[in-house]
Amino acid sequence: MTYVFPDEGRRRVVIEHVEPQVDNGRFPIKRTIGESVTVEADAFADGHDRIQCMLQYRSEHQTAWHKVAMKPLGNDRWQGTFQVHDIGRYCYTVTALIDHFASWIHDLKRRVDPADIDIALQMGAELIEGAATRAQNNDAEKLRSFVGLVRSDENPQIRLNAAMDGELAQLMTRYADQSLAAVYERELVVVVEPVLARFSAWYEAFPRSCSEETGRHGTFADCEARLPYIAGMGFDVLYLPPVHPIGLTKRKGPNNSLTAGKGDPGSPWAIGSKAGGHLSLHPELGTLKAFRSLITRAREHGLEIAMDIAFQCSPDHPYVEEHPEWFRHRSDGSVQYAENPPKKYEDIYPFDFENADWQSLWIELEGIFRFWIKQGVRIFRVDNPHTKNFYFWEWMIDRIKRDYPETIFLAEAFTRPKVLHYLAKVGFSQSYNYFPWRNTKHELTEYLTQLTRCKEREFLRPNLWPNTPDILTEYLQFGGRPAYMIRLVLAATLGASYGIYGPAFELFENRPREHGSEEYLDSEKYQIRSWDLHRHDSLKDYITRINRIRRENPALQYDRMLRFHSVDNDALICYSKNTEDFTNIILVLVNLDPHHTQSGWVNIPLDSFGLEMGLPYQAHDLLSSARFIWNGPRNFVELNPGMAPAHIFRLRRRVRSEKDFDYYM
Amino acid sequence: MTYVFPDEGRRRVVIEHVEPQVDNGRFPIKRTIGESVTVEADAFADGHDRIQCMLQYRSEHQTAWHKVAMKPLGNDRWQGTFQVHDIGRYCYTVTALIDHFASWIHDLKRRVDPADIDIALQMGAELIEGAATRAQNNDAEKLRSFVGLVRSDENPQIRLNAAMDGELAQLMTRYADQSLAAVYERELVVVVEPVLARFSAWYEAFPRSCSEETGRHGTFADCEARLPYIAGMGFDVLYLPPVHPIGLTKRKGPNNSLTAGKGDPGSPWAIGSKAGGHLSLHPELGTLKAFRSLITRAREHGLEIAMDIAFQCSPDHPYVEEHPEWFRHRSDGSVQYAENPPKKYEDIYPFDFENADWQSLWIELEGIFRFWIKQGVRIFRVDNPHTKNFYFWEWMIDRIKRDYPETIFLAEAFTRPKVLHYLAKVGFSQSYNYFPWRNTKHELTEYLTQLTRCKEREFLRPNLWPNTPDILTEYLQFGGRPAYMIRLVLAATLGASYGIYGPAFELFENRPREHGSEEYLDSEKYQIRSWDLHRHDSLKDYITRINRIRRENPALQYDRMLRFHSVDNDALICYSKNTEDFTNIILVLVNLDPHHTQSGWVNIPLDSFGLEMGLPYQAHDLLSSARFIWNGPRNFVELNPGMAPAHIFRLRRRVRSEKDFDYYM
Repeated sequence: MTYVFPDEGRRRVVIEHVEPQVDNGRFPIKRTIGESVTVEADAFADGHDRIQCMLQYRSEHQTAWHKVAMKPLGNDRWQGTFQVHDIGRYCYTVTALIDHFASWIHDLKRRVDPADIDIALQMGAELIEGAATRAQNNDAEKLRSFVGLVRSDENPQIRLNAAMDGELAQLMTRYADQSLAAVYERELVVVVEPVLARFSAWYEAFPRSCSEETGRHGTFADCEARLPYIAGMGFDVLYLPPVHPIGLTKRKGPNNSLTAGKGDPGSPWAIGSKAGGHLSLHPELGTLKAFRSLITRAREHGLEIAMDIAFQCSPDHPYVEEHPEWFRHRSDGSVQYAENPPKKYEDIYPFDFENADWQSLWIELEGIFRFWIKQGVRIFRVDNPHTKNFYFWEWMIDRIKRDYPETIFLAEAFTRPKVLHYLAKVGFSQSYNYFPWRNTKHELTEYLTQLTRCKEREFLRPNLWPNTPDILTEYLQFGGRPAYMIRLVLAATLGASYGIYGPAFELFENRPREHGSEEYLDSEKYQIRSWDLHRHDSLKDYITRINRIRRENPALQYDRMLRFHSVDNDALICYSKNTEDFTNIILVLVNLDPHHTQSGWVNIPLDSFGLEMGLPYQAHDLLSSARFIWNGPRNFVELNPGMAPAHIFRLRRRVRSEKDFDYYM
Repeated sequence: MTYVFPDEGRRRVVIEHVEPQVDNGRFPIKRTIGESVTVEADAFADGHDRIQCMLQYRSEHQTAWHKVAMKPLGNDRWQGTFQVHDIGRYCYTVTALIDHFASWIHDLKRRVDPADIDIALQMGAELIEGAATRAQNNDAEKLRSFVGLVRSDENPQIRLNAAMDGELAQLMTRYADQSLAAVYERELVVVVEPVLARFSAWYEAFPRSCSEETGRHGTFADCEARLPYIAGMGFDVLYLPPVHPIGLTKRKGPNNSLTAGKGDPGSPWAIGSKAGGHLSLHPELGTLKAFRSLITRAREHGLEIAMDIAFQCSPDHPYVEEHPEWFRHRSDGSVQYAENPPKKYEDIYPFDFENADWQSLWIELEGIFRFWIKQGVRIFRVDNPHTKNFYFWEWMIDRIKRDYPETIFLAEAFTRPKVLHYLAKVGFSQSYNYFPWRNTKHELTEYLTQLTRCKEREFLRPNLWPNTPDILTEYLQFGGRPAYMIRLVLAATLGASYGIYGPAFELFENRPREHGSEEYLDSEKYQIRSWDLHRHDSLKDYITRINRIRRENPALQYDRMLRFHSVDNDALICYSKNTEDFTNIILVLVNLDPHHTQSGWVNIPLDSFGLEMGLPYQAHDLLSSARFIWNGPRNFVELNPGMAPAHIFRLRRRVRSEKDFDYYM
């Protein structure tokens, strides 16, 4: 008979079900600088011996593991936590071993027969001796002195006291015999990104509409002039639609008409002309130098420029001539344009990711990111990533982030849920999602709970957009200015990251191209628009206030703690976010009905906020600055959408008198 | 810049989350002969192309894969099913590819522009040509004729009809281009066991108590004489506690007393004496020949003998002298006995699985199974597997089942849930569990739902025991004969596998050793008992009836379809099992109160049984043979525990007249 044995059959501990991990470690989890990773694992051994369970972690720049003792949670589950301080990648895993010393102590405490205790102490002394041989210097000496005490012929109580000494226990843990330790089968990875990947307010604007003169094509210099306006509202990211040369062939006219008139600027997503392709700038916007200047100026205003990367070509793109092999051809020899029969998009040629020369295509596309990173860009918004090969994205993002770990990628993947999730898994830092079409209390509660409470939150960071140049929802079309306020509060407080497409947003531009369409009439996608930023009814100040509330309240800077609370009126939604230590508790109440005043009773789970049931507490509306003293969990609220469709309350605990309020000081 | 690429970057399909699998394929799933495996997977590609998804499977004796087309369930989920016919191991996995032909057809149907259709037909003809080069003989010829039709200058409708021909679609699927197919990253394994691993009724009896003469030590021959009695009740498995020589040193006396009197037989679990160890038989039971004869006779009665394997030694076991290295030693040189301080079990020496010579121990222990398999044993009940190294069990069971795939292992693991689950994962076919202590409706519903509806059901097969020689629950102690009937019905109908320890069970022996103990008074573990099998109040006939109902109703032979239904009385529990085709529907109603008559209204989900709401249906009590005609979902039931504490109804559909009843014919 032949026998094949495992390497080490004396190992007795099992480690299973380590969390968090994505698809069994196939993909990394995500964090931002300063966040913690709380790791749980099942660990157990046969029999009745005690075990020790350790969390190990290290940044990619370190070779040695940091170790954190895990605490038992009951039912063979263990938990430990570490913090990530450096951008880049960390590894983590779990080890466990039979703790013979702890098992021995456990039994020793229960022994009653003196002869039995004597023999047990002798055997314990052997365990301590073993640890002494693994220790060095002082520690070894200390352990040897414990051996002496435990083995001595002093009275048993002195020997027992020595055995149960706290310092001995510590030393025995430190010098535990690792030879039969179990190590979890995988090293898991956490990718650590800048804080902006988690907490960010985005503003999208077409540079060509930034000119102050009606009709003149905006330039990067005009964008620079617009920076104080955008930064003043408190945004972190200014996202520009594609800034590359725009094709002429089959160029679209205003309102997506098939023929462009002379002077019509075309869609910025129809990339490439004689002036160049993805590595060039649209001549009317300005030079590379002007673009770099915009990035620098923006940064001085606390704004990062996000660049739009749309991997598709106009028929005039230089690639079409230089690399015909990257495109699919029709049987008549022409290049295959984008289509969704019977619709044709003849101004767009998609790349063929099944082409035999895929490696040269991948190299070229990756080079586009590298080129713009070298110009100073740190954030990319990627257009329709779900229509390009997923394996390309994984390969590209991994490569870029190894060289430039501060880079942030936003996936514009308005697609099916599993595809959206997969793009987040392969490395996109943030994801557009279905928020625009979630309007009722039920829809919002269900969807945001899924996004923030399910296992997807380990890799998917939602970025909530009430509108985009492609999305003017029915809710916005018919709800007027209150609808814009409502959707703004929802986006900015439900999501640690959110964005708006302006100035259409602050000026609540809501005319659709036609009934039933989500396209804007006279969309900036096809023409230059001039906006009156100084209109008295602009939502600029409301936006400014909300962005300030976001910056001042750490609770709003994370999605994990989002919880919904009951209100006895379906038109009112109530939810909260808080820091883990409850020093910052934000409770948001929104009237989802843009047309009518709504009121109801809200139920606040005081104990889960660390608020004492008996004591009054303060609800401070950060939008209106009004302060309320509330008692108990049930409170009445009324919201008039024409006036103020939402409260953003900060709840403060332990109200004793006015002097206890922190604003009193 | 250096580039490292994936092997094939043109592959565009992703396959994820294939189910069933256990811990990412670390462990196999389990089935019995004839069962099906329904596999689901997420599969999707970038863009809008159609995909094709295939389930592949093969038995370990085959090299070629069988392929089953998977059906889309929506939301990128796919499903396919295969059946396992052979004992042993099967592999299965999922493949998927972009279906260029189906994508082309999808678009073709939507095209309207004649020039566009012409070009599309030309391109489709190229696809068909490609398939023709992969096909042979007739199929290739057929495909080429389709190329001709699609490319011809006939009128477009004829060309379109050819393109959409059903036979062409089939051929295109069969000869799809596999070069860019994605294959799921793992081959998953299903271990196929005998039907008895899923559906079995066990009877445990001490051979030494099988003598018909009071006081005489029973023998294997006495067991043979008892076979008609046991088989007559309809059991499948006769499980014998250890049959090895019993140690003398520190032998326990009646009721676990520390000193055995002369003539006290000792505990069969204190294995080993001068007469031998785990490879020997207790001389008073009989010879190896007698044991083999018992196995053969039992099989003639439709009974398999299950042997108890308890890996521990009495101080007199030959291993203690021959292999001192397999045991732990105390500092005074003595062998470490089993203990749970302050309790000592000095009649038992456990093996030390951390000993340096672990390989020789593993070989010896595995050899014990091989030895008894060669004597004809096919079923082993393993004592306390959770106190022995898990990796040993995995290694041993895998080896044994590769040579003897019909072998069944029952784990006696009354331990924490994750340990119990892990033993099932490493290969035990069936598991004892917490059923004995689940008595209320809430407890039973929660626990059985967990066992039969959660992912554990892929590897954990519960075996439900109302009693064992170690477990005389409070419920049985105080509930009298009705309690035994109730627990019997629950075990035998909630579980496809169940067992009782008799004759203590059928004679409802319920005296505990002391108040608060779950041990029997005068337990057979320490003394020989003589049972009056002919007592007029024996539950023998009731057990016989229930085992016959189990054999006649396939619904009771599986656990997967168990569902609980509401009754408006917490003392009444109602549940059902049915075959997938609803030809066999069993509805069980049990009064959990052994002392009082209970009544209530039960709610039967007619539609989920395929019963029509408007029509009456028959409820046939298989216990009492009474037949009821029921109408609608709500029905009244009343159960007197002294008379009949349970109904086991078979529900029959489509009742039109008496003549439609199947018993009428």
